[in-house]
Amino acid sequence: MIDDLHISSTADAELAARLQARLDAKTKPRGSLGRLESLALQIGLIQRSETPSWHAPQLIVFAADHGLAARGVSAYPSDVTWQMVENFLAGGAAVSVLARLHGLALQVVDAGVAHAFEPRDGLVSRKIAFGTADSSRERAMSDAQCASAIAAGREVVRGLPGNALLLGEMGIGNTSAASLLLSRLGGVPIEEATGRGTGLDDTGLARKRGLLREVLALHAAAQAPLQALAAFGGFEIAMMAGAALQAASERRVIVVDGFIAGSAILVARAIAPALADYCVFAHRSDEAAHGRLLQVLNARPLLDLGLRLGEGSGAALAWPILESALALLDRMATFESASVSTSSLDACTSSASS
Amino acid sequence: MIDDLHISSTADAELAARLQARLDAKTKPRGSLGRLESLALQIGLIQRSETPSWHAPQLIVFAADHGLAARGVSAYPSDVTWQMVENFLAGGAAVSVLARLHGLALQVVDAGVAHAFEPRDGLVSRKIAFGTADSSRERAMSDAQCASAIAAGREVVRGLPGNALLLGEMGIGNTSAASLLLSRLGGVPIEEATGRGTGLDDTGLARKRGLLREVLALHAAAQAPLQALAAFGGFEIAMMAGAALQAASERRVIVVDGFIAGSAILVARAIAPALADYCVFAHRSDEAAHGRLLQVLNARPLLDLGLRLGEGSGAALAWPILESALALLDRMATFESASVSTSSLDACTSSASS
Repeated sequence: MIDDLHISSTADAELAARLQARLDAKTKPRGSLGRLESLALQIGLIQRSETPSWHAPQLIVFAADHGLAARGVSAYPSDVTWQMVENFLAGGAAVSVLARLHGLALQVVDAGVAHAFEPRDGLVSRKIAFGTADSSRERAMSDAQCASAIAAGREVVRGLPGNALLLGEMGIGNTSAASLLLSRLGGVPIEEATGRGTGLDDTGLARKRGLLREVLALHAAAQAPLQALAAFGGFEIAMMAGAALQAASERRVIVVDGFIAGSAILVARAIAPALADYCVFAHRSDEAAHGRLLQVLNARPLLDLGLRLGEGSGAALAWPILESALALLDRMATFESASVSTSSLDACTSSASS
Repeated sequence: MIDDLHISSTADAELAARLQARLDAKTKPRGSLGRLESLALQIGLIQRSETPSWHAPQLIVFAADHGLAARGVSAYPSDVTWQMVENFLAGGAAVSVLARLHGLALQVVDAGVAHAFEPRDGLVSRKIAFGTADSSRERAMSDAQCASAIAAGREVVRGLPGNALLLGEMGIGNTSAASLLLSRLGGVPIEEATGRGTGLDDTGLARKRGLLREVLALHAAAQAPLQALAAFGGFEIAMMAGAALQAASERRVIVVDGFIAGSAILVARAIAPALADYCVFAHRSDEAAHGRLLQVLNARPLLDLGLRLGEGSGAALAWPILESALALLDRMATFESASVSTSSLDACTSSASS
């Protein structure tokens, strides 16, 4: 499943110095483009290029259902998962609108939705099952299902054009799986790892926390990353983990959406720590637990706009910032080419005193 | 100069309710698009429309020099102002690159650069003088110059197409003017109102603070907004204030870049408080004092990426977020049109338990 994976650190002091020198030669005070500079540097290192560029960015939404949803952990019924998949494909969802606006190819992967879809353009069928099992009663997936989901995620990416993968998801109940993974793999108390998802009220949140505590206890033995993933699910998280691993092994940039996509990175990074070098975290969501997850991942997101929608909407929204970073590196003039003074030592005459 | 200005509050409870109803009908949990929803609402109110849209957004960079720069308040010589204007026009500056990338028309206004430019496309000549006077010796501008600059800013906007104005600036030494305005009009101690600008070291910063304290004392009588503006400068700040006032009076959306543009809003808002309704603050810059200014303005910026460049670069970078907000309001499907369940009450059958 992952034995053939080779993910190297992107560290390259010599290339980093050349990239920094290119940035420093641009007509701006050193470092004045802030995060855009560190972003350009990171992407240059990923692409092993002094002149990194974007090519055919791909936004993939992995969708699946969760057996645990039957226990009332979401404000929405599981049917919303397949209904939203239809909405993605019809172009009416937030992520559809943002992908079109920002020039991102969008595909939806059925990782395990509890619904039989007709085949059609834009829908990739990798269904492992009609939703995971209820993790409050048994493991969400078998080892074989977990392995198949990771392998399927890898295959999906292997066939993609482009050099950037934006990861989004849809799955009623999947904030619960993400919370369980954060708690188990990140060592975060379940109270801090659990939020309102897309819209639970106080009573719903308290019930969710109580239930997740039971689920953690039931699977106390599932400590290793893949064991935890199989115990808690879901198929879309496993597939995103596989997709991220494959993307990093091919030196694609991985743009991580929110809490659920981040939980997949938590799993993938536990398997291959160097994966961290390839990840750009799009935003901090309004899901309270997301801040804790980002801490655990030592990640600084680009945006903080109070989104709590998932779908890859935050990744799509952040994409113009990634575009901007490379455009600046590529297209800005240098002090030399533009004949701009670099410091007071270069000052010409006395217009300053006029 | 401003006696003919009519700037109304955009408050309209009935329209706000209709806009919110449109947002709530979209296929997403209520409020789950966070700041994008409040942004869409704000813009709808500005445009007095349930279906707000963008038309020909204009990024204007106001450039001018500062007599105070001769006292060493910047890491760069004043000549960099005109050199950067040339760079904006040649397309090589950060703001040029970002404006092209994000579909913004860019013009540069010579508000008072200490340099004689040849006329050319993209450069609007509104030169009040070859830089302001040194505010550590006398008032930066006369009352007549201040009035002319505000009037010129208004005229620039009056002639513009489109319904969005993005405000940027260039002027070596202008963080000092902004700090002085923040301190005087915002009641912020000069230590907190002063930062490193585009790159002062500790010694430079200490000297700048000391000097600005002297300037404040020299102009202790300049307490009213326009008096303070005339005392401290600069021409580009006065012109941005005029531009913002005119834009609001025409119900254009105003996208405010960083610390300097924000100081112009501080002045303009003191003249016409309802102007606040029309402003979107693009980002929090790395200039320490900018956080204080945003507090004084009660403003929550869209981005926080450690930029400290000015030019309108942050406004250009934030533009895709403003585009996104209206695209979502315009193009997302509704629960009804997409046949998506709105809550567990609408749940169909038992796929959740599979």
